Amino acid sequence: MKTVFKVDIQFGDCDPAGIVFFPNFSKWMDAASLHFFVSHGVQPWRELVKTTGIIGTPLLEINTRFMKPATYGETIEIQTEITEWRPKVFIMQHIVMREDTLICEGTEVRAFCIRDGDRIKAIEVPADIKAKCS
Amino acid sequence: MKTVFKVDIQFGDCDPAGIVFFPNFSKWMDAASLHFFVSHGVQPWRELVKTTGIIGTPLLEINTRFMKPATYGETIEIQTEITEWRPKVFIMQHIVMREDTLICEGTEVRAFCIRDGDRIKAIEVPADIKAKCS
Amino acid sequence: MKTVFKVDIQFGDCDPAGIVFFPNFSKWMDAASLHFFVSHGVQPWRELVKTTGIIGTPLLEINTRFMKPATYGETIEIQTEITEWRPKVFIMQHIVMREDTLICEGTEVRAFCIRDGDRIKAIEVPADIKAKCS
Amino acid sequence: MKTVFKVDIQFGDCDPAGIVFFPNFSKWMDAASLHFFVSHGVQPWRELVKTTGIIGTPLLEINTRFMKPATYGETIEIQTEITEWRPKVFIMQHIVMREDTLICEGTEVRAFCIRDGDRIKAIEVPADIKAKCS
Repeated sequence: MKTVFKVDIQFGDCDPAGIVFFPNFSKWMDAASLHFFVSHGVQPWRELVKTTGIIGTPLLEINTRFMKPATYGETIEIQTEITEWRPKVFIMQHIVMREDTLICEGTEVRAFCIRDGDRIKAIEVPADIKAKCS
Repeated sequence: MKTVFKVDIQFGDCDPAGIVFFPNFSKWMDAASLHFFVSHGVQPWRELVKTTGIIGTPLLEINTRFMKPATYGETIEIQTEITEWRPKVFIMQHIVMREDTLICEGTEVRAFCIRDGDRIKAIEVPADIKAKCS
Repeated sequence: MKTVFKVDIQFGDCDPAGIVFFPNFSKWMDAASLHFFVSHGVQPWRELVKTTGIIGTPLLEINTRFMKPATYGETIEIQTEITEWRPKVFIMQHIVMREDTLICEGTEVRAFCIRDGDRIKAIEVPADIKAKCS
Repeated sequence: MKTVFKVDIQFGDCDPAGIVFFPNFSKWMDAASLHFFVSHGVQPWRELVKTTGIIGTPLLEINTRFMKPATYGETIEIQTEITEWRPKVFIMQHIVMREDTLICEGTEVRAFCIRDGDRIKAIEVPADIKAKCS
């Protein structure tokens, strides 16, 4: 199921060219990603870590295409879905719209991760989370 | 010519998992990109705009692969070069190292842009900038 | 008239201690400040600059007291008002609440500013803006 | 002993007015604060938490006065010292200079904090840390 996450763009999100500083789109896609899981009944990471050790879904790869700039005072909507589950990773897709205008779109490769001493390591996609989100 | 841009990672760059919040890598690659141009004799955007109208080099696409996390108190180095010039865009590559460890690597498709009323539009790569940077 | 600005706290707004990285409260108070003006019929800065030269209301001083931490997944509300008008500056007050809990409160001293060559300078508070906001 | 922390201002640190978006000064003062402690032999928070439970020094209050704007491509230096120790809090002062120009100055009230279940609570200033930093 696709979820929708709304962002009201702030002055401080924009750069000297007057448009959204592009890394903020990654920040908002990340928020849309967590919103996707919480909307499907997964606990926020700080709760999930207590029972499962999972600290979140760090990124292995991102790919984003920027079509139109956006600026402060505008509202954008991020449509998010998981397009593929693999044993240890999943692919998340985000479509960012300002009304009918496509602003940008991004694909993320993410893995569920736990702590392993001072390191962080990927685990197999938990079956119950996959079931909730499919 | 490759340039090197150094970043001392700050506490506020990291997220509740204790590692760099990934959009910051895009922010630093953007700084490394401007540093590349300035190192090759191109003026900072706020000066360049006065004589050429160019407001910077907005992104058309980014692609980043994350190998290892990094955290505050660590120093990383970003090695930057232009790997391809096309008529209206160029490809920039960033390799992010913590000493001998590859942290992440990113490719950006960028275009030189000017204002056109309330819009922003791409122009052909200026010959003099291409000459300075090749 | 007091205005209310709502913020949904994101994972990327929080630091390794798991709580909002405090400069983000200043960022949100700044957004609440612009929201206050726009709610009172003042144009966003990028429009206002065209007719008046005003680029915004840069800060001369901020004072913030932090009572309780907040974290991602929570929604906060910022109540904003102007508590004092002086000839060249005004005092803005922000109260940040999570339901009935006071999270922090901040006072800002701001001035309307225009460009003066490469510099930025404060002007007298425009009478029409003061009238709209009082 | 005063410490000095250097920041190279990036394009992405600046707002549509072309100057540093002011909350970034708070971010850099926070980095200067941790740099102060580490320079005096205190471990970074992620290490200190393992032996003492201390997660850092959250803010109780900040007060910042902005004298001059700064922009990308400029380097600033933050001079940091502790001006007062009280039983449960300490006062930190930051002076931000661009060569001989005072950009801004800030005062922070901070406390050493530990986790207490889901809450965070202030403890007395640890005597050994105070000794190292005095």
